[in-house]
Amino acid sequence: MPVLLIRSFQASSSAVLFFLLIVFVASPLVDARIHHHRWEVKYQFRSPDCFEKLSITINGQTPGPTIYAQQGDTVVVELKNSLLTENVAVHWHGIRQIGTPWSDGTEGVTQCPILPGDTFMYKFVVDRAGTYIYHAHYGMQRSAGLYGMIIVSVPNSVIEPFSYDYDRSILLNDWWHKSTYEQAAGLNSIPFVWVGEPQSLLINGRGKFNCSMAGTDQVCNTTNPQCSPYVLTVVPGKTYRLRIASISSLSAFNFELEGHNMTIVEADGHYVEPFVVKNLNIYSGETYSVLVKADQDPSRNYWAALNVVSRKPATPTGVGIINYYPNHPKKSPPSAPPTGPLWNDTEYRVKQSLAIKARKGYAIPPPPTSDRVITLLNTQNKINNHTRWAVNNISFTLPDTPYLVALKEGLHHAFNQSPAPDTYNNSDGYNIYDAPQNPNASYSNSIYRIEFNSTVDVVLQNANMMTPNNSETHPWHLHGHDFWVLGYGTGRFDPVKDRVKYNLVDPIMKNTVPLHPYGWTALRFRADNPGTWMFHCHIESHFFMGMGVVFAEGVERVGRLPTSIMGCGETKRFVRRP
Amino acid sequence: MPVLLIRSFQASSSAVLFFLLIVFVASPLVDARIHHHRWEVKYQFRSPDCFEKLSITINGQTPGPTIYAQQGDTVVVELKNSLLTENVAVHWHGIRQIGTPWSDGTEGVTQCPILPGDTFMYKFVVDRAGTYIYHAHYGMQRSAGLYGMIIVSVPNSVIEPFSYDYDRSILLNDWWHKSTYEQAAGLNSIPFVWVGEPQSLLINGRGKFNCSMAGTDQVCNTTNPQCSPYVLTVVPGKTYRLRIASISSLSAFNFELEGHNMTIVEADGHYVEPFVVKNLNIYSGETYSVLVKADQDPSRNYWAALNVVSRKPATPTGVGIINYYPNHPKKSPPSAPPTGPLWNDTEYRVKQSLAIKARKGYAIPPPPTSDRVITLLNTQNKINNHTRWAVNNISFTLPDTPYLVALKEGLHHAFNQSPAPDTYNNSDGYNIYDAPQNPNASYSNSIYRIEFNSTVDVVLQNANMMTPNNSETHPWHLHGHDFWVLGYGTGRFDPVKDRVKYNLVDPIMKNTVPLHPYGWTALRFRADNPGTWMFHCHIESHFFMGMGVVFAEGVERVGRLPTSIMGCGETKRFVRRP
Repeated sequence: MPVLLIRSFQASSSAVLFFLLIVFVASPLVDARIHHHRWEVKYQFRSPDCFEKLSITINGQTPGPTIYAQQGDTVVVELKNSLLTENVAVHWHGIRQIGTPWSDGTEGVTQCPILPGDTFMYKFVVDRAGTYIYHAHYGMQRSAGLYGMIIVSVPNSVIEPFSYDYDRSILLNDWWHKSTYEQAAGLNSIPFVWVGEPQSLLINGRGKFNCSMAGTDQVCNTTNPQCSPYVLTVVPGKTYRLRIASISSLSAFNFELEGHNMTIVEADGHYVEPFVVKNLNIYSGETYSVLVKADQDPSRNYWAALNVVSRKPATPTGVGIINYYPNHPKKSPPSAPPTGPLWNDTEYRVKQSLAIKARKGYAIPPPPTSDRVITLLNTQNKINNHTRWAVNNISFTLPDTPYLVALKEGLHHAFNQSPAPDTYNNSDGYNIYDAPQNPNASYSNSIYRIEFNSTVDVVLQNANMMTPNNSETHPWHLHGHDFWVLGYGTGRFDPVKDRVKYNLVDPIMKNTVPLHPYGWTALRFRADNPGTWMFHCHIESHFFMGMGVVFAEGVERVGRLPTSIMGCGETKRFVRRP
Repeated sequence: MPVLLIRSFQASSSAVLFFLLIVFVASPLVDARIHHHRWEVKYQFRSPDCFEKLSITINGQTPGPTIYAQQGDTVVVELKNSLLTENVAVHWHGIRQIGTPWSDGTEGVTQCPILPGDTFMYKFVVDRAGTYIYHAHYGMQRSAGLYGMIIVSVPNSVIEPFSYDYDRSILLNDWWHKSTYEQAAGLNSIPFVWVGEPQSLLINGRGKFNCSMAGTDQVCNTTNPQCSPYVLTVVPGKTYRLRIASISSLSAFNFELEGHNMTIVEADGHYVEPFVVKNLNIYSGETYSVLVKADQDPSRNYWAALNVVSRKPATPTGVGIINYYPNHPKKSPPSAPPTGPLWNDTEYRVKQSLAIKARKGYAIPPPPTSDRVITLLNTQNKINNHTRWAVNNISFTLPDTPYLVALKEGLHHAFNQSPAPDTYNNSDGYNIYDAPQNPNASYSNSIYRIEFNSTVDVVLQNANMMTPNNSETHPWHLHGHDFWVLGYGTGRFDPVKDRVKYNLVDPIMKNTVPLHPYGWTALRFRADNPGTWMFHCHIESHFFMGMGVVFAEGVERVGRLPTSIMGCGETKRFVRRP
């Protein structure tokens, strides 16, 4: 098949040098391109919020470079790990990796970590247009700055069901000054040391810390260009497609463009039946496209405002500037930045979740019934005085040998072979408004083996944490699939009454979905992608503390595994090259 | 062979639990024991100088537990890596690893790094009594706290040539508050950011930082018991063998016991012809035994004082207390702690180096001639604007595949096959008092292939750094061997005049030797230990910046390599277990 080869790479570690090589094959058969990227991942000092912190960069950047491709293209990322003594793995969030489960980038699940000095080649097809993310998927490394966006456009022959003049991307994040090592050591400590609320909220990698709060041996400079606010320059009267993604480590966000409505048109790569919001609730791992018209008074600029919701905010509003051309980009808007909705107005956020449906004419109907129902109780627990998160009282740990290799090669001793539980104890009597009835959980790396091509319902059930009167929002992300979002509800899920209310007509498909405080979220997926797939809370510290499960399906159908994913656990063996 | 099995291990990661299992086999054939240790290596918050820093601990301790064994015993350390996302490797400094070159613990040379979650078994014979060290040998990880001592006693039937009442160990170190990641990122930066002088000097892991200099978001508490000074309680009139080791990352030390003479009797595991000093100059990687008699006024306590020499000190004197029993251990000595000799009195330090000879009756005569002379010029250089250290203008880099595996398995593409140079350009005209005549160096991972069983002379040649009028002390450490110290001199080594002055009668054998400012140091070793062996400056940042070489000898005689050392570079392949 003729291909268009697009290659961008960095020639040396000391000078960031990009060049673009386009081999154009003038043929009507041209229908897929290969985008070849060379990335060097390393630690560098960066000041995204004016405060200097050792950050993980890709080719010198955090956020990393945006990957642009067209539906059907192949993306190749040759990732060189230049982190001195630390391994790495990068997940392509929202890309289903059909036929390439070893490229999912989930350390311990689909690959061994990439060692310092090693270069790993990720290669996958972006089979569906939409807005996606990539990020580290190893330890709590994502929080150190290793993330970026993936923008997949529709094929040339396809016209999208909405129109706009310009396409812009906005990546939202929260940011800590402590290293991920310090954060992780605290979470592992007895007594438990929580990471706390973020120091800053970043819009496209830019925030503003109050440098007067920095210590004398710390570098903080409010005039550092690295922390000048993100500016979205708009031409009055034009319509912008904003691709908004959240890669936050902890925070649920509310994002608002002062004085401007947003029309939600895409979520996680699927078209949404358009509806208008004043501000957007977005959870870690989610992506949206919204249409915004520059229809306000063009004589001034406006705030882009990022606020924390669901947790009591202790971080200043993150701000950017909507700059109406030809005003000066740094002209400050006259009013104070919007502070968002009430942080604890759960109902407000559930309402938005419920409003997101598949766009008419684009809905993919779910299978009408499921073959299996897995109910997952989300609780905070204790194990040997360690504070952990657990699912059905099992706190997840990763094995040393990746599941994909262990299952494909029959290494049965590589992980706990008992099945993970399909539901929780006393599921019809559990009081979700109380602290966990059984506060003790167990560590396990057991998994869910799913029959290939079967249909699975997952009911996520929220509950009270260890602390009284507290239930958090957990954004759950599924690798390797999109799922249908069948419903949200409050309280304990009722298998009789609630199931009949499932939306089987026009449910949106997503890869990440919020589980609201004291609520439940029901979703359905087809286990049609051979591989091993993580399903986990996308809050970095929650996942680190055990909040995840693994689904394995059709592993016997997976092709020959590349040796590049091996080298750890039981896959550390030497053979001469054939 | 009947063995005594001594096993100490940690049962869980949350509670440090030691127990000692001694299986005593009552037999006259008992002549070797196996000491089995289980170590868990992890990040924990520690305050060795009162300032809280994320440190690497072994079973909760930094410095790690001391390994005690008797000559001829086997030491087994099962090391579990619990560093979240970081690999590890531990070197047994001074242990020659005869027959076990894969247990030398040198990442990139003798093994792949140990991955998080992995347990690696080091197993080696301690074939010679003496005082040794262990420490991380991966990146700059040693500086984070992963080190300890190894004490090997003489066989029961052997009487040492000196006597003492008590045996005590003193480990000296320098300590930074920045993480090793921050230090390494600075060293790799353009412009170059030097690590600077240490914040504290530690005696047995204890120092005292001035907490008033700590920032508001930093934890510093002078009453933290972790930073109460080291106390050596002595009984008046008794003689103490102090085993003193330096694991400093940068500093050359002078160690003094206020008012007490020290008689040097051992260096790096070899008996020294005894001589008396008022204070001891000790370089990173060196060990000494000194005899000290508690012969001073017993009504008071005395300072143990640790001072920086060779670099202009910017760190307060590190102090401990010599506590004359029955005075209170915390009773402060009446005078100020000794401040040591002039930091730039090179002559004073060279004199001590020259005074160290093999003890009469214990000298092992060196081969009278050598088969090969390797001259190593030590310069600071630039490569692509990076500041580096170089040897004969080659700045060392480690390959992704360990040399031991690459050489044994014939992986010729794993590293640069050109031989490393045996001398430097213009070696008979080079002005060592000027900045480098060729400031440009090259990166290389080329090595020295040494004929097995040949005798090699190494002449270390110091020179001026990049900055005018500055030449540093470099402690060079050889793995896998002891070498004879043939001589020290000032200026450029003269192959005719200086060589005839070599001490071939009673040279001390050592594994670490200082190269003094603007001087040379000559040493000789027999290449009789099959394996691949690092020879490098023991200053952590200098080695990180390229100051090292590798000697390979008799690799074809090395036994079957354990697969546990593989998993990186070209050794990342899967084969089913046989």
